Parts: sequence; structure tokens; C-alpha cells
Amino acid sequence: MRIFIPFFFLVNILFAQENIDSLTIRKIYSYHLTESKSYNNLHSLCKDVGARLSGSKQAEKAVTWTKQAMIQAGADTVYLVPCMVPHWVRGTKEKCYVSGNSKNGLESFSVCALGSSVATPTQGITAKVIEVSSFEELEKMGSEKIKGNIVFYNVSFDKTFIHTGGAYGKVVKYRSGASMAAKYGAVASITKSMSTADNDFPHTGTMKYDSLVSQKIPAFAISVTGAKKLSALLTQNKNLELYLFSDCKTLPDEPSYSVVGEIRGNEIPNEVIVVGGHLDSWDLGEGAHDDGAGVAQSIEVISGFKKSGIKNKRTIRAVAYMNEENGTRGGKSYAAMAAKENKKHVAALESDMGGFTPKAIGIEAKKDTLLYYKKWQPLFEPYYVFIKQGYGGTDIGELIKLGVPQFSLEPDSQRYFDIHHTADDTFEHVNKRELELGAATINSFIYLLDKYGTYKK
Amino acid sequence: MRIFIPFFFLVNILFAQENIDSLTIRKIYSYHLTESKSYNNLHSLCKDVGARLSGSKQAEKAVTWTKQAMIQAGADTVYLVPCMVPHWVRGTKEKCYVSGNSKNGLESFSVCALGSSVATPTQGITAKVIEVSSFEELEKMGSEKIKGNIVFYNVSFDKTFIHTGGAYGKVVKYRSGASMAAKYGAVASITKSMSTADNDFPHTGTMKYDSLVSQKIPAFAISVTGAKKLSALLTQNKNLELYLFSDCKTLPDEPSYSVVGEIRGNEIPNEVIVVGGHLDSWDLGEGAHDDGAGVAQSIEVISGFKKSGIKNKRTIRAVAYMNEENGTRGGKSYAAMAAKENKKHVAALESDMGGFTPKAIGIEAKKDTLLYYKKWQPLFEPYYVFIKQGYGGTDIGELIKLGVPQFSLEPDSQRYFDIHHTADDTFEHVNKRELELGAATINSFIYLLDKYGTYKK
Repeated sequence: MRIFIPFFFLVNILFAQENIDSLTIRKIYSYHLTESKSYNNLHSLCKDVGARLSGSKQAEKAVTWTKQAMIQAGADTVYLVPCMVPHWVRGTKEKCYVSGNSKNGLESFSVCALGSSVATPTQGITAKVIEVSSFEELEKMGSEKIKGNIVFYNVSFDKTFIHTGGAYGKVVKYRSGASMAAKYGAVASITKSMSTADNDFPHTGTMKYDSLVSQKIPAFAISVTGAKKLSALLTQNKNLELYLFSDCKTLPDEPSYSVVGEIRGNEIPNEVIVVGGHLDSWDLGEGAHDDGAGVAQSIEVISGFKKSGIKNKRTIRAVAYMNEENGTRGGKSYAAMAAKENKKHVAALESDMGGFTPKAIGIEAKKDTLLYYKKWQPLFEPYYVFIKQGYGGTDIGELIKLGVPQFSLEPDSQRYFDIHHTADDTFEHVNKRELELGAATINSFIYLLDKYGTYKK
Repeated sequence: MRIFIPFFFLVNILFAQENIDSLTIRKIYSYHLTESKSYNNLHSLCKDVGARLSGSKQAEKAVTWTKQAMIQAGADTVYLVPCMVPHWVRGTKEKCYVSGNSKNGLESFSVCALGSSVATPTQGITAKVIEVSSFEELEKMGSEKIKGNIVFYNVSFDKTFIHTGGAYGKVVKYRSGASMAAKYGAVASITKSMSTADNDFPHTGTMKYDSLVSQKIPAFAISVTGAKKLSALLTQNKNLELYLFSDCKTLPDEPSYSVVGEIRGNEIPNEVIVVGGHLDSWDLGEGAHDDGAGVAQSIEVISGFKKSGIKNKRTIRAVAYMNEENGTRGGKSYAAMAAKENKKHVAALESDMGGFTPKAIGIEAKKDTLLYYKKWQPLFEPYYVFIKQGYGGTDIGELIKLGVPQFSLEPDSQRYFDIHHTADDTFEHVNKRELELGAATINSFIYLLDKYGTYKK
């Protein structure tokens, strides 16, 4: 009996010991649910700035906007970290329809060029379509079947994952399937959108060409309903020809910036805890959940500390990273700066999975380390938040080489891939309370990280 | 050290011990996420049947619909439990505007009659408005200020609650504020909607007249933005007169039914575990989250057992209760039947907080009992679900007098009171995966209840 201390008792013991923490965290949550500017800030970022792909005018505007928002949030210092970013532009609306049919007819499809893709020739591409459900199937077919045709990756999104990010991780490689198709002589590739929803929004996202394959062919994404329709038509007519058009292009790299808002530590100012999201977004929607939410939440952590009257021991930095979507140049340049400066980064947390109700703080760590943080679990039970094994994020991942422990906010993932990288990623899909609870959870976890420090062996 | 066994180890120990349970639960979740009919069923209930207030034709249609759905889900037996239900009808669209102004002008307000309210006189009511923020304020004012006027309960919804049901519980009494107002001579009452969202949907809901106050005055709800506008206008002009109209009425009680779908126990068939939601809904929307979701999930528990190949020891009953919204007659008649039948109810679970992502199984129990169920917590961690102290539900609450342990699904509550009891409670606000995860969580918890039984002292 003695060695079996159920969870419930641990809760009680810890609550007695850590009553101050429990009250402080309650105060933090109340601040975010009643006084926070995160929702208004996100509204402004989505509506006044809008979509902000790296290298665009709006991305430039977003930098200025964020600087101002961080000053208003009460940061002691706000500064920019420069980086050179890729500058890809979509151009005019893409076209995809059954050859010979009107683009407005029944047999047109909702597609979009994938980020970094090359354009089609000016007159477009007309070719037969070869549908595959995996790279293995493509390779078995070989040049004989693929050459001169369009490859259609009709790969399904595994709905059994509880964290939908897992399902996304399994299939995202098909977004860069153009090179594999080109290797066998394909003239273009179309990838079914990685989506949890059955709707007609194509999901964009970055793709990479394999440097070992010299031929670069245009890469498109097709909506889920479009993919279903195309597959059905191909069953009826294997010789169906599809017309594809895009005039997207890659311009020279542009100078850009990540934005940093800092509140100086009161006791150990040369130790830094960094919290962030990414400022750039895809061009189709408003970058609301991806990742305006993370930016708005990170800015609000500054206010949260100030307004809750918490004296942070360590320096806390909110960072809005540029260029997460197609290059991580902001994350890289921030890490390069961190490596050189006379300060030590002790923890990094990223919020880049949407502004949904928080479900967990994910920790990229193994057993012993995890146990250290698990002790804080009872403090988060009133907020229905787990402390669990997880990972960090793309931007802060660049800090791993400096040995910086990685954390992330894990919001409810069920709706994220309904709208991810689509024209439907708009402010209207963000719920005020959900966004605020996410910010409160990050703020509370950082309060504990700052107070007790990270795990030491 | 020996007495401190952190949660993480417990997870490992329990997972080793209960590997079969872990695998079975995984199978249950996979079933619901890939094969479940819950979303299609909910679509049909919302769109083919629609709003289904007790006593209405649609409520009658809903009974037939549910019977059929339970048969299709694979229930061994499906039957009806009769009850007499109240029959209140809203009548024509309510009117509320500043007297002398057009109802379509700037100074009209979105209102709705509250369920069970009496109508205004045919010519409507025109009177001054006295705004109060509490019953205490009303009582201090007394007859002198209230007599002949409309009382406007402008009570705020406490946003600091994490479970929004707590905030609702604090203010729902103001929905029945008409009698208190009438006691001091008021001619009508208007209550600000209990809502987490700032929008123009009035929220209906049931109200009760105090039997000690003979005068019954019409009771309205006003939207949140309407309440703000009204309050602002009253600040400018205390003598403002409001026109109110409603021709709602209460007709004689009607016969109706709860619907029961049963799968017979394989070992202890005379012990019953009941899972349910309520079939009736308010008349304004489609009763999607409240509580089409709970009905669709309960029906799907039948399929879940059948399709996952689980041999249930005990008898499992899915119940779609009639009349939760304004009388609980279905819950009462079911409990009356249960008291008489030659079977023992060992557990009751209700899903009546929306079809959102599950956050917890709530247990209406104290320490020792709770500890028994907390042992199952590790099995639910992969699904981000807590096992915690909570409560049952309105319908199954009628079984408390038979000593039946009470459980509930606690979905994420952040969006529930945005749409609760409004015209906006439609199918479109339900996310497929969220609904399915709720059903899977209920199904898994009932699997454990059936296998291990409930707590015994």
C-alpha cells in the first residue's frame, strides 16, 4: 500500500505545498480571460495586416505591427533580428480542369500551387493523369507509365490519430513529391490536401525539389473534394486529360526580420526563456490559427507578467519569428544571434498549432527530465491541461544545437487541419476564450519555468 | 523516495497491467474516428427532423427517428418509455423596440420569449425600463421604483470560470426573475442572455414562475449586444419607453416518449448501465450541440460495442430522454420505470454539454469513490481526457434516488455558451472529429464500467 500513492493524493499534497503557485496561476488565467488583448491583437493582425508570406509587403507591415504591439504590451526592450527570406509569389489564380471543358464547368478542380513550386509553361500543361497512393506505387510504375503525364498523389489522411499532427507528419512528404514524379518523366504533380475536413479548399504549404533531380516540374495541391472527384472521373476514363496552369515564381531573397520583445529578469537577467510563434503566414487566408494565434499569445505573455505583478527572475523574450513556413530563416538567424550573445537560453516554448483550447504542454524530453515537469501537473488540472512528452517547434528547433530545452503548447488539434494553409484560415475561426486559455497556459508554464528553473541532471 | 511514485510511473505500471484495456480502448477510438455514424445521424436529426421542443410535431418525429437509428445501430431491443410533456409554443416572432421607433430601426433589440412565459397582452406592453444587475439591487429599489415598469436584468457572465457551466450556474436564476420583478409590480422582465459570446442571438431557456407570486408577467431574453445597446440608451435617457410583444402560449400537456435502445448483458444481464442525452431541444436552432450530439453519441455506443466485438457483461442502454429542457418528464418517467423493473441500474452517464472535444469524464462522487476511477486515468491520457470529480446530468439525476452512480462526459466548454439555446445551435457548428471523440470517450469509459463494475465500499 505504501508505494501506491494514487494521483489524487499527489494532487492534494502538491496543492498544499504549492498554494502560492496555484493562486498565481489562477491570477494569470483570470487576467487572460478578462483583460487580455490577444483576441483584439489577432483581429488586427488578420484584418489590418492580413496574409503575410515572407518577402511580401504585408510581411513587412507585420514586422512594424508586431513591434508596436510588443511595446504596447509593456516590453522593456523591443528589437528586430534580421534575416534574408525567400520571396515566392503565387501570381494569378491557378487553373485546373478537364481538357476541353470550361474551367467553370462541373469538371474544374480547386487547386493551388505549392509554395516554392515553379510555374507551368505560359500556355499551361495538358496531360493524362496517373493516380498513385504512395511513392512505392509510383516507383513500381516507373518511366513507362509516368513519362509525359501528371502524377496525382491521392494519399489519405489517417483519421485514427488523436493528435492530428501525427497524421500530417505521415503524409506531408507527398507535398514534395514533384521531384520523385519528375524522376520518372512526369510533367506536373498534384497532391491531395492534407486535411481532416472533406471540403473544397486546397491546402498550400511549402515543397522542396530534390537537388538530385534536375527537372523541376510544377507542384499543385488539390482540395479533398476535388481529389475525390478527380479519382472518380479517372475510374470512368483513364485517358482523361487535365489542363493545369500557374504563373507563380520565385523572386530574389528579401531582407526581413523577426521581432523580439523582452522583459528583463530581476535576479538572473542573463538567463533567457524564450516564447514564440511565427509571424509569416501563407498567402491564401489570414494566418489566423497558423500562426497569428501563437504571435498574439506570445505578445500577451509580456502583458501577463506585467499585469499579474509577477517579478520574473530570468529574462523573458517573446519572439515573432519570420519565415517559418518556407525556410525557417527567422528561427535560424535568432539561434545564430543567441549563440553569440552574452546570455544563456535556458528554455524555449513555441505555440504553432493553432489558437484552440489548450490540451497539454508538450516537452521534448525523456523519462527523468519529464518527471521533473510532471510534478507541476496538479497545478494544471483545474485547467484540463496535461504535462506530457511532446516536442518543441520548427523555429525553436534551431536552438537545439545550443542545448536549449524545448517545449510547446499543444492545443486541441481536431480542427487545425480543417483550415491549415487554406483561404479558410481566418480570424472568424478563432474563439476568443480558446485563444486566451492558450496564452494563459503558456504564461503559467513559463512562470513555473522561471521560478523553479529547468531540469538539471 | 519509495512513497513518491510519480504519475509517469503509474502510467507505465498500469499500461503493463492493463494492456488489453489499452488496446480495446484504442480499438474503440479507431472505430468512432473511422466508421461511426454519429456525424451522419446528427446531420439527419438536425436537418430532417430539426428543432424538437417537447409537445411539437418535430419532437414526435424525433421519437420515430431515434427508434429507427437505434435499430440500425444494432440494439437488441428498442422501446419507448411514455411520459406526458408540457406543450409551450413561441407563436409569432417577438418584438422589442424603443416606443415610437420602427421595429426595424436602430433602436430595436433581438429578444425572445423564455420558455413557459406567458404572452404580453395582444396590443403589447409599453413601459419604462429599470435596469438592475442583481436581485439584491431589485429588492432595494422596491415597488416604488419597479411598479408599472419593465425590469431589465443586466447580469454579467463571469468569464473567469474555466468550465463555462460554472458561470452559467451562477446566473441562470435570473432567467426566472419575472416573479421577483412581478412581486414589486413590474409588467415584464427582460434578462440578458447567458452567453460567452458578444453577439446578437438571444438565448432562450426555461423559466419558472414562483407559486407564491400570483401575477405572471411576460419574461424575455435579450441578446448580449442588445443588452449593451439598451443599457447605453438607458444611460442617455432614463425615461426611455420600450415596446414588447409576444404571443407565446402554453397548451395542454401532450403524450410523448423517451427512446431506449438496449444491448443485453452476456453475464449479468439484470445489471444495467445507462448512457444518454436528451432528444428534445429548444425551438430556435436545430438542437445540434444541445443535445443532438448527446443523442447521436449514445446511439453510437451501441454500434461501438457491436463493431468493436466487445462482449458486454451487463446490459447497456442508450436512452434519448424527452423533455430535459422544460420539465425533465422523460428523466422522471424513466427513473419511475427503473424503480419498478426487475433489474438494477449500476451506473448512469449523460452527455449534455455539447459535441466538443472531450476533456474529462466527470464523476459525482467523493474521495474514496473517485480514487477507484482515477486508476483508469492512464488509459485515457493518450486521448487527453481527465478522470475527475464532476457531476451527472439533469435526466440521470432522477436516478440518484435509486442510488445510481452518476457520470458525465465533459467536453470542452469554451464554445458551448456561444450558441446554447439560440438559433445558432446548428449542425454546422459541430466538428465531426470532436463529436466522434466524445462518443469514443463515453464508449471506452462504459467498457471499463462494464468490465470492472462501479466502486463498492
